[in-house]
Amino acid sequence: MTSLPDSARDALSALLGARLSLSEADRDQHAQSETYFTSPPPYAVVYPETTEEVAQIVRICAEHDLPVIGWGAGTSLEGHALPIRGGITVDFARMSRVLEIHPEDLDVVVQPGITREALNTELRSTGLFFPIDPGANATLGGMAATRASGTTAVRYGTMRDNVLALEVVLADGRIIRTGSRARKSSAGYDLTGLFVGAEGTLGLVTELTLRLQGQPEAISAAVCAFPDMEHAIDAVIQTIQMGVPMARIEFIDADCAAAFNAFSGTNLPLKPHLMIEFHGSEAGVAEQAETFGEIATEFGATGFERATRTEDRTKLWEARHKAAWAIAATRPGAKMMATDICVPISRLAEAINETRADIARASIPGPILGHVGDGNFHATLLIDMDNPAELDEAKALAARMNDRALRLGGTVTGEHGIGMGKLAYMPAEHGAGWDVMGQIKQTLDPDNIMNPGKLLRGN
Amino acid sequence: MTSLPDSARDALSALLGARLSLSEADRDQHAQSETYFTSPPPYAVVYPETTEEVAQIVRICAEHDLPVIGWGAGTSLEGHALPIRGGITVDFARMSRVLEIHPEDLDVVVQPGITREALNTELRSTGLFFPIDPGANATLGGMAATRASGTTAVRYGTMRDNVLALEVVLADGRIIRTGSRARKSSAGYDLTGLFVGAEGTLGLVTELTLRLQGQPEAISAAVCAFPDMEHAIDAVIQTIQMGVPMARIEFIDADCAAAFNAFSGTNLPLKPHLMIEFHGSEAGVAEQAETFGEIATEFGATGFERATRTEDRTKLWEARHKAAWAIAATRPGAKMMATDICVPISRLAEAINETRADIARASIPGPILGHVGDGNFHATLLIDMDNPAELDEAKALAARMNDRALRLGGTVTGEHGIGMGKLAYMPAEHGAGWDVMGQIKQTLDPDNIMNPGKLLRGN
Repeated sequence: MTSLPDSARDALSALLGARLSLSEADRDQHAQSETYFTSPPPYAVVYPETTEEVAQIVRICAEHDLPVIGWGAGTSLEGHALPIRGGITVDFARMSRVLEIHPEDLDVVVQPGITREALNTELRSTGLFFPIDPGANATLGGMAATRASGTTAVRYGTMRDNVLALEVVLADGRIIRTGSRARKSSAGYDLTGLFVGAEGTLGLVTELTLRLQGQPEAISAAVCAFPDMEHAIDAVIQTIQMGVPMARIEFIDADCAAAFNAFSGTNLPLKPHLMIEFHGSEAGVAEQAETFGEIATEFGATGFERATRTEDRTKLWEARHKAAWAIAATRPGAKMMATDICVPISRLAEAINETRADIARASIPGPILGHVGDGNFHATLLIDMDNPAELDEAKALAARMNDRALRLGGTVTGEHGIGMGKLAYMPAEHGAGWDVMGQIKQTLDPDNIMNPGKLLRGN
Repeated sequence: MTSLPDSARDALSALLGARLSLSEADRDQHAQSETYFTSPPPYAVVYPETTEEVAQIVRICAEHDLPVIGWGAGTSLEGHALPIRGGITVDFARMSRVLEIHPEDLDVVVQPGITREALNTELRSTGLFFPIDPGANATLGGMAATRASGTTAVRYGTMRDNVLALEVVLADGRIIRTGSRARKSSAGYDLTGLFVGAEGTLGLVTELTLRLQGQPEAISAAVCAFPDMEHAIDAVIQTIQMGVPMARIEFIDADCAAAFNAFSGTNLPLKPHLMIEFHGSEAGVAEQAETFGEIATEFGATGFERATRTEDRTKLWEARHKAAWAIAATRPGAKMMATDICVPISRLAEAINETRADIARASIPGPILGHVGDGNFHATLLIDMDNPAELDEAKALAARMNDRALRLGGTVTGEHGIGMGKLAYMPAEHGAGWDVMGQIKQTLDPDNIMNPGKLLRGN
């Protein structure tokens, strides 16, 4: 099937009216990706407002054997939301409300289309916040789908740890609720955990119950330069061993420092850096920052600078958040390939070193930064898409990174997900476990209409 | 089938020799339960030493359509390990080794038969520990199977949060590995999460990779009495809201206090109490204990006593750990029914109050204690099994607790699992989600040989 059958169009139109969009501009917009993947446009884009509408949409698609692809903010880095087999894109822009806030229970119920920044704006007056921060202003539905994390995972975990419950529309239109507002449960299979990270291949998330955190009484951030990457990583390992509770611990290499300086007006020496943040009581963060300062100095850090004022911290983390754009700006017109390996921290220096050596020999740039408290880092490869040799070279570099991750006991994706970009590595990472994923997919979506072409074998 | 076919016995005997046990004493021992459930003995007990042997055992059972039931320490409270449909009990006593310790990565690889106390003894010299503490000296395999937690979950999470990776033997004898030693991953469906809490109904866990924690620099514990339960719970809520990082926060009612005094020689006033522990730096735990002390006093606490010396803390937590025996000792010869509801903390006082009122009207005792930082509590109902009316009464009380948990937005089991005891509540808790669990079971164990009769519909 390569277009929208009349009967499907009529059914969707009757259900949604003007919220069925067939315009070329809208469809093209939903075939865009932040990275190097390309896709034909979807046959249509739909904008449901209720779970029941989502269920009806899925039922209509099931009847017509049409792929169903969820869409949040389009910030995925592995082509997750691209309709590569055509079909209907379900854009959750009109399901973006906060439904319930429970301040005593530190939880919130939201629709999938809300972005993390919008959620935190709504939470501001409660003294609570949602801690997961993948950098991009992604939607919560998308973050759940890819099991996102980011700079704060070292303290607060990933989406796996922060989604308490979900409402999901399955491939046959059934609506299920997984989990509850209880903080923990042993009541059967962990379906919440199964749908978090399933990349829309098992169903569409229509509601999320999320854990919240109290805004810390005090926050302290710091940045410092190291003579080389190994010393920086050793400082991280030592800090973890000491049990110092870091809220963020980010590594950037000298190329990133240069990119930040050019793009965000920072004035970082062209060396590897650690950027760190502590959350806690006034006395607690002061003690933690002092302990870290001592460790960093022991490992040769220089220019240690604490930022306790909100505006200084904001400037620091803005530079980090804009890293992707800063790196992209070093090569105008280039497309990004965002690599994302995660290894046991004892192997992290080795993994980064080998990757740097590979990139040094390559013809394309690839600045490295990472959430090093988790052993996760990215080399952002910049590709001139008019030069096919560069894409091949980038794929070869990424392949070597992925093989390296597995050799060192890690994973090919710490936080970006499989989508289209990591499919080839699933057999090596999971072996027969990938078949088990396929069996689960087969039983819950036998006609393979939910986001086909992603995550699964032959899908 | 009601006994072991000769061909299965011969195959198991050829594989295991003397590690196939057909003795009545051994079989009877594997039909025992800590609580009120009863079961016929298994046809045989097997003691594998390797994963490959476990896979062979499962293949032999699959060929003969024999149920396969895993056995750890037999400490389950919901009859999980009982061979209620007969079959072969796989006792992991001879797979109880620590395979690898990675101090820099804060992880450990173990076999399923090791107990948590044995694990922590082996870890002692490393400065690391495994924090999950369900009270009983359960095996790690069993703790994973039931998604156990306990007193420290408020700080360190449950087994869900502390298992990084598993090796699992599936119903057809396939051996899969889920997860890796990376701290996080977005590489496809979370199979680790699927098997943790699956109660052996999808496969047998043969190896676990676990997160470890650094032994805290300082530990401080305290106990204090409250005028009533509501004040105690309000103090907990306030402490959570303040972001004070508690390592343990346990509630016991006046009946428990009396039982502890009689059994463990404590000298607690006959009032509701909170028992609390802080982990961190010297300065950190001192600050936290002080903040908690102020909050507790504000809510009417008396007799606030800090225990910073190891022996005082040990005495305090020993009394708590022996709670089940202490409660059982108040009614010699009685069997326990261990209830286990978990609700949002804002509804916890209501849930406990209604439960207490029910028990006050009943003819059987049911002291209440709970992991109140998570909203989880247990009324331990004591039943004279010679009086069928008491078992009925206990079941009715438990049913009302379970209905209450669901009405208040919680779960019928915070940490004990479904097993046989909670099966009847799965439709109410999960609705169509239970069907999805059934679909997953059906696809991975179509002949229903893995721990039949537990967790699933019509199973």
